[in-house]
Amino acid sequence: MTSSEIYAQIQHKQSFLCVGLDPVLEKIPGYLLKEKDPIFTFNKAIIDATIDQAVAYKPNLAFYEALGPGGWETLQKTLEYLPENVFTIADAKRGDIGNTSTLYAKAFFEQMNFDAITVAPYMGEDSVSPFLKFEGKWAILLALTSNRGSQDFQLIEDKKGTPLFASVLEKSKLWGTPQNTMYVVGATRGSAIQSVREIIPEHFLLVPGVGAQGGSLEEVARYGMNASCGLLVNSSRGIIYASSNRDFAEAAKKEAQKLQTSMEKLLNQYCG
Amino acid sequence: MTSSEIYAQIQHKQSFLCVGLDPVLEKIPGYLLKEKDPIFTFNKAIIDATIDQAVAYKPNLAFYEALGPGGWETLQKTLEYLPENVFTIADAKRGDIGNTSTLYAKAFFEQMNFDAITVAPYMGEDSVSPFLKFEGKWAILLALTSNRGSQDFQLIEDKKGTPLFASVLEKSKLWGTPQNTMYVVGATRGSAIQSVREIIPEHFLLVPGVGAQGGSLEEVARYGMNASCGLLVNSSRGIIYASSNRDFAEAAKKEAQKLQTSMEKLLNQYCG
Repeated sequence: MTSSEIYAQIQHKQSFLCVGLDPVLEKIPGYLLKEKDPIFTFNKAIIDATIDQAVAYKPNLAFYEALGPGGWETLQKTLEYLPENVFTIADAKRGDIGNTSTLYAKAFFEQMNFDAITVAPYMGEDSVSPFLKFEGKWAILLALTSNRGSQDFQLIEDKKGTPLFASVLEKSKLWGTPQNTMYVVGATRGSAIQSVREIIPEHFLLVPGVGAQGGSLEEVARYGMNASCGLLVNSSRGIIYASSNRDFAEAAKKEAQKLQTSMEKLLNQYCG
Repeated sequence: MTSSEIYAQIQHKQSFLCVGLDPVLEKIPGYLLKEKDPIFTFNKAIIDATIDQAVAYKPNLAFYEALGPGGWETLQKTLEYLPENVFTIADAKRGDIGNTSTLYAKAFFEQMNFDAITVAPYMGEDSVSPFLKFEGKWAILLALTSNRGSQDFQLIEDKKGTPLFASVLEKSKLWGTPQNTMYVVGATRGSAIQSVREIIPEHFLLVPGVGAQGGSLEEVARYGMNASCGLLVNSSRGIIYASSNRDFAEAAKKEAQKLQTSMEKLLNQYCG
């Protein structure tokens, strides 16, 4: 999927919402447990309920690996169920030496046909560049995450005062282009998003942490939006667990609609 | 598995060899392809051939994920085939926010019963500490890797001149203990192993890069060995692809024996 195809979907749906498909058996409505594949049944209902508001879906691999070998089948079925015109992200945070990263890329881009995969940058260029060699596919690099531990290393400043996350942006933007590279930037600090935009004005940012992790959507848009939106804002728990009863899909739709309404306003205000 | 159990195996086998089980269909002997599960058949033969020399086995997850859903079954079968008294490492380089890392830990420590998993430190403490909460299990943190890209970020010095990999060691050694934390330290620079040892004298180091990646076993032992050995040195391609013919297992055994012989000498020279 190209960046202009993503932007076309954003314009069409007036939304830059990404839905995190991160379900666990303990939290989905109990009556689904009698289904043959409860997680797939749950995902289908969430997708049906949110497809008018979401431009992207992001299953986190941990949630599927925790299910054992059957989890990969659930993931594969979920991916096949998603329509072609949504952007699909394998939140896998992979990254290894070159030939091993190539295997990961093949697993997620060819075996499973994801559009994108999240990648940890610690091992440097040869761990990232294999993901950039697949036509129409994307690597989404961890830059500044929204968890507490992001302060342990990502904010360490070098001798010139450049924090590590900014070095990751500076170096890695030369490995790919805004057509095959995105960045994970946490929403918990608006000022940080501003400094990210100074380094990479054109790239798409994948922003977790709006909702459960406490970021403000308005701040993200104000500091992060560019002329082609340039944002995918993720919500997982806030949407998929909006209700734990039989009305879970309806409740998910309402949450997605609320976010879409806010996003439409922000697109009008800041995009372009 | 405890560190003294690992050391007991090292003393028993007079070896600190870890065998990387990283097979691809294109490289295993062609006649195996008619087997129901060629990779498992290959792994079994490699394990049988090297079990007297190896104290640890390390499947890299990428190689199994690339096989699709069946890959997880191959991995599970391989793990179950390994005897209880070898140390098993899931080379998965995972790391995510806290509750997600917990899911990865459950997948590898409970679903699959690995002794250890490799973890990428970029997201900080709450991405690592969930792996340290499982009795008898280990997190092996990437510190200084042996690939070219390790220079992109791992060697960036902060204002005090401390390179990132040393900050990773300094901070993370406080999150766990030498009983539940090990570190990946590449073998391509002996002097670097020395500076690692100044920060973490007691921890086990997992050392890739001897053989195909060009590190010297003697240097690794000279700078890295401590009173309980404190080293697991990995070889993958050098062993598993020692021959591409019907004698592949025999050839693997010979390579493992060569390494064991060198390791026995080094244990006598530097350990204790």
